[in-house]
Amino acid sequence: MQLFIGNWAPDGRFILSEEESHHCIRVTRHRTGDRLLISDLKGEIHLGRIMDENPKQTSCLKEEVWKTEQITQGRITIGISPTQQSDRFEWFLEKSVEAGVHRIQPLICHRTENQKDKSDRWGRIIRSAVKQTLRAYEPQLLPAVKLREWLKTKEDGQRFICHCGPGHKGFLGSLYQKGSDVTVLIGPEGDFSEEEVAQCLSSGYTAADLGSLRLRTETAGLAACFILQTVNNCK
Amino acid sequence: MQLFIGNWAPDGRFILSEEESHHCIRVTRHRTGDRLLISDLKGEIHLGRIMDENPKQTSCLKEEVWKTEQITQGRITIGISPTQQSDRFEWFLEKSVEAGVHRIQPLICHRTENQKDKSDRWGRIIRSAVKQTLRAYEPQLLPAVKLREWLKTKEDGQRFICHCGPGHKGFLGSLYQKGSDVTVLIGPEGDFSEEEVAQCLSSGYTAADLGSLRLRTETAGLAACFILQTVNNCK
Repeated sequence: MQLFIGNWAPDGRFILSEEESHHCIRVTRHRTGDRLLISDLKGEIHLGRIMDENPKQTSCLKEEVWKTEQITQGRITIGISPTQQSDRFEWFLEKSVEAGVHRIQPLICHRTENQKDKSDRWGRIIRSAVKQTLRAYEPQLLPAVKLREWLKTKEDGQRFICHCGPGHKGFLGSLYQKGSDVTVLIGPEGDFSEEEVAQCLSSGYTAADLGSLRLRTETAGLAACFILQTVNNCK
Repeated sequence: MQLFIGNWAPDGRFILSEEESHHCIRVTRHRTGDRLLISDLKGEIHLGRIMDENPKQTSCLKEEVWKTEQITQGRITIGISPTQQSDRFEWFLEKSVEAGVHRIQPLICHRTENQKDKSDRWGRIIRSAVKQTLRAYEPQLLPAVKLREWLKTKEDGQRFICHCGPGHKGFLGSLYQKGSDVTVLIGPEGDFSEEEVAQCLSSGYTAADLGSLRLRTETAGLAACFILQTVNNCK
């Protein structure tokens, strides 16, 4: 079944956005009485039934909770430099949503080549991945910031920086404590500069690695998500 | 440093293939005496020095072992259906090499839409990912086979099938025993048919899931690699 997005009205009805209403009635040709999955992307997906097949403002009644997504612990924030080829970064956005990322922070680092902020396009890619993956929560895309600005924010939970430079590093999966909120920073092609690594360490980040293989920026960001999810999913 | 691929001559010299020799001498303009990374992709990368800058047959002397890749245990075989859009499957090939896959078995399943065998192109994608990731071992790409044919081969190690159908499933990361060889089967868009799942189970495969989120075929294949590697890398 397909997921449609909208908001709850005060009277308890669920109202699809205009775009979603059009898609639901004109494209997928749903009719009054049809059942669909509906969500406001704040943690729950409901099974609903169309009350009014209005192509501008379709309204639904909720029947039962279909899925609840845990968003109170083990929240994953990935701070990552956009890549030189934007399709690689867009690929990361789609896949990290599938992998259960909670927040994405594009980071402008010393060696970041591609500094264009495409937040509108990035947001659309995240939204469509959310629908494809039937996620009950929409990951937050934060506005791109310079790394040194980001380090001024005091994030809760564990904080890691994955870099390829020298110095002792443990495996991210071994350092991560199951269930805790976590922020992982991933550098651009060419990695963080030595100075950036030093800044992160002195800001309370712990150096971690993602295994023994060399990963591209976008693969590293996704690997971090899967490694953390594996720790959270393992008994 | 860049990785160049070739073979060991009986006299102990390392000979780059004609294509690699051309790339090394004509494109990256290396000269006699330059140091490079060389590998026959059978588990070791050496630091070598060019003895003869021949653009058709460059020869090198090995100086020291630079990297050894563990290929005797924890070997990961992913049996996966090619996807409808070939770029998604090619993306899986590149990323699974980065994630440390050992063997890739394209599987033709009941719902596999795209049955074109593009093994030449797929092999080139794997090779270039190997060089990019500095892997010391080239994952094996097996010729595409029908699922039922594959099930006749008796694979060593643990064997799992990841499907979205009903029935009890454990999380792949919890079921996998660290260090053991493993085969994981991933179905096409639309999943394995019920009959195919039954065939796999009766052939000794165990049903497993990759977490609570719905993943696309290519993402599922990569997720399996990262989940297994996480178990192998964790202390």
